[in-house]
Amino acid sequence: MICMKTVLKNCKFIVTQNKKREILTNHDILISGNKIEKIGGNLKGDQIIDCSQNIVMPGLINLHTHVGMHLLRGYADDMKLDTWLKKLWPEEDKLTADQIYVAATMGINEMLRTGTTCFNDMYFEENRIADAVKELGIRAVLSRGLGVEDLADKKRIAKKFIKAENLIKYIKNMKCSRITPAVGPHAIYTCSKDMLLKGCKLAKKYKVINHVHIAETRKELADSLKNTGKRPVEYLDSIGFLDKNVIAAHCGWVTKGEIRTLAKRGVKVAHCPSSNMKLATGGIMPLKEMQEAGVLVGLGTDSVVSNNSLDMFSEMKICALVQKQNYWNPTVAPAQTVLDMATINGAKALGLNAGSIEPGKLADIVLLDANHYLLQPLKKDRIISHLVYSANGSCVQKVFVDGKQVI
Amino acid sequence: MICMKTVLKNCKFIVTQNKKREILTNHDILISGNKIEKIGGNLKGDQIIDCSQNIVMPGLINLHTHVGMHLLRGYADDMKLDTWLKKLWPEEDKLTADQIYVAATMGINEMLRTGTTCFNDMYFEENRIADAVKELGIRAVLSRGLGVEDLADKKRIAKKFIKAENLIKYIKNMKCSRITPAVGPHAIYTCSKDMLLKGCKLAKKYKVINHVHIAETRKELADSLKNTGKRPVEYLDSIGFLDKNVIAAHCGWVTKGEIRTLAKRGVKVAHCPSSNMKLATGGIMPLKEMQEAGVLVGLGTDSVVSNNSLDMFSEMKICALVQKQNYWNPTVAPAQTVLDMATINGAKALGLNAGSIEPGKLADIVLLDANHYLLQPLKKDRIISHLVYSANGSCVQKVFVDGKQVI
Repeated sequence: MICMKTVLKNCKFIVTQNKKREILTNHDILISGNKIEKIGGNLKGDQIIDCSQNIVMPGLINLHTHVGMHLLRGYADDMKLDTWLKKLWPEEDKLTADQIYVAATMGINEMLRTGTTCFNDMYFEENRIADAVKELGIRAVLSRGLGVEDLADKKRIAKKFIKAENLIKYIKNMKCSRITPAVGPHAIYTCSKDMLLKGCKLAKKYKVINHVHIAETRKELADSLKNTGKRPVEYLDSIGFLDKNVIAAHCGWVTKGEIRTLAKRGVKVAHCPSSNMKLATGGIMPLKEMQEAGVLVGLGTDSVVSNNSLDMFSEMKICALVQKQNYWNPTVAPAQTVLDMATINGAKALGLNAGSIEPGKLADIVLLDANHYLLQPLKKDRIISHLVYSANGSCVQKVFVDGKQVI
Repeated sequence: MICMKTVLKNCKFIVTQNKKREILTNHDILISGNKIEKIGGNLKGDQIIDCSQNIVMPGLINLHTHVGMHLLRGYADDMKLDTWLKKLWPEEDKLTADQIYVAATMGINEMLRTGTTCFNDMYFEENRIADAVKELGIRAVLSRGLGVEDLADKKRIAKKFIKAENLIKYIKNMKCSRITPAVGPHAIYTCSKDMLLKGCKLAKKYKVINHVHIAETRKELADSLKNTGKRPVEYLDSIGFLDKNVIAAHCGWVTKGEIRTLAKRGVKVAHCPSSNMKLATGGIMPLKEMQEAGVLVGLGTDSVVSNNSLDMFSEMKICALVQKQNYWNPTVAPAQTVLDMATINGAKALGLNAGSIEPGKLADIVLLDANHYLLQPLKKDRIISHLVYSANGSCVQKVFVDGKQVI
């Protein structure tokens, strides 16, 4: 097979996100197959795309989503978590596989258009979400949510584990390098110890990511203390759940001791600021302490029911703002740190060879309109600021995933 | 003169923001001159605009801006307020009148494109900003900022007051009904008692709005207590500064007692959540207590140096999120309340006959693309949620100000 070579010609600016966090001007990018082969001048290829009016950046990585919920956007807002869940769950139960497929196509379309090239999802009927991922050309890590309202319902639990393993087999069978299976034990309040450990074992069996919600709300913390005598991270560590394959969404209610545990076990955190704020969970993921302990933190939107958008540009801004506000310190979460969370950290968390524009990396690339009014005045030393504080998904003009132009 | 009549035909949805907060389906809006004449079916006019694929809503009102700073976007982020001001002030001093005019055209363009039809501004060289407002067709309330770094510099102070009064005369002379002059005594830490009272007197003389920053930071509060023995609102009330013409930006550091004073004096508040969060001022304007006391609260972006966008859709979302987060209560700042802040409350604060789509109101109207991916699934009872939590300025398709299509 001959490898298609595409040149992104004369890029006005390339936000590389390489180790030096360089911003290059007037360089070409040679894409060969699904990878970036070279960055330089006068590069030749089969297809030439003029990028003289573009800011070129790595695709954004959304580290925590439930894309199957897209049809429920705007259905339940401005209510307490228990009211919210009670309103939501019956609607979710009614969702058919076809509706989840439609929801996924809508959500993926929104993500691609707003510059996201990969997402880490947990839901049910994920095989249909996998179909949508394959068709629409995005990259994804997909897990079947394992969690039940009634922990005594052994039949339902057993069925879920069969579905979870079937999803892994289904995705492996698709032989699409853009789609990676994962396991999704939902949370300590919807999974028994047995379920959590079984999820863990399944993840280890297939060497895949273990995607879980940890310490999202005060109630989760209080119930954990009541039921186990331990805080959520302490409890999960005590049963041997935590390891480097775990991606933990939220972590808003954690102590410094728990953060040290997360660091020691190599757990990755998916910060979801909009969702936490909208549900008013109170606890804001403590970025400074996570950084000090060396925990890798990425960024996620969560679902459109608790956000209600999948635009990672908007999420970056809200992340920077709420972190500063939370510490009463404007130097926390500077623009570069937040952009790292949404790109290179997300890639590292998912074990992906992506998140930066460098030779050898996957060609997951976003082109922004350099003349967009939200990006003015356009100066090299202001670009990172503009990306985080001013841009939104409407600045995106073209999107490449796995070397192919999908927008 | 014959009055041009325009019909917005068959609007898919009209978010009226009338007293009942009705959302109408498939209605026409007849614009006659600069006003809305009628809402109904089968309306006739000289110009017909098909709105069958549009959500029609009142133009957003940005209650606190410094649009002359637009060229400085991204110049100073992620730093403490004193470092920030020290970096900013020398750059501001260098700005020429022509640069401020260019900045204003860029800022106004961004506001119009993102659905803002009126803004309340404070800066210097406001006559050039007035020129830009006149040319670009937006509506504005403009004040010359009165404030100095050195309160002993009597000459500079005197000059500023002359310029402030000249601005009022200049705007009155323009005879453009879209532009209203105002007075802008900057803050208690940049104005002496004498300056504040002189500003007050000037506002009374011309019966215009008195635009001021109050209780933005902890330092302002601490200094006020140290210098006057009173908190900012208490101090301003003690010298007779507060009345119904005052629009107070920020009010993040106020007690319940001060809120009662604001209510008693009829002061209006411009909440600027992004700016407060980005500068990490700590104090979040207490919306619940303001509402309980009956204080009218609108929404503002502040400048692009402390935000860094003028998109009021983004500001509405951030407002809702930070208010919920601040109270650990998701029922605070529901979508309808936040939309009210950005429309009808802003209009009331500025004494404008606008902010809703009703017969007799000024025709300041925004048309959104009803098929935009951020607004799906589109259902009548989810529209307000979508406007606040999901939409951004890129959903805007057409904008009318004073009956004229400007976008």
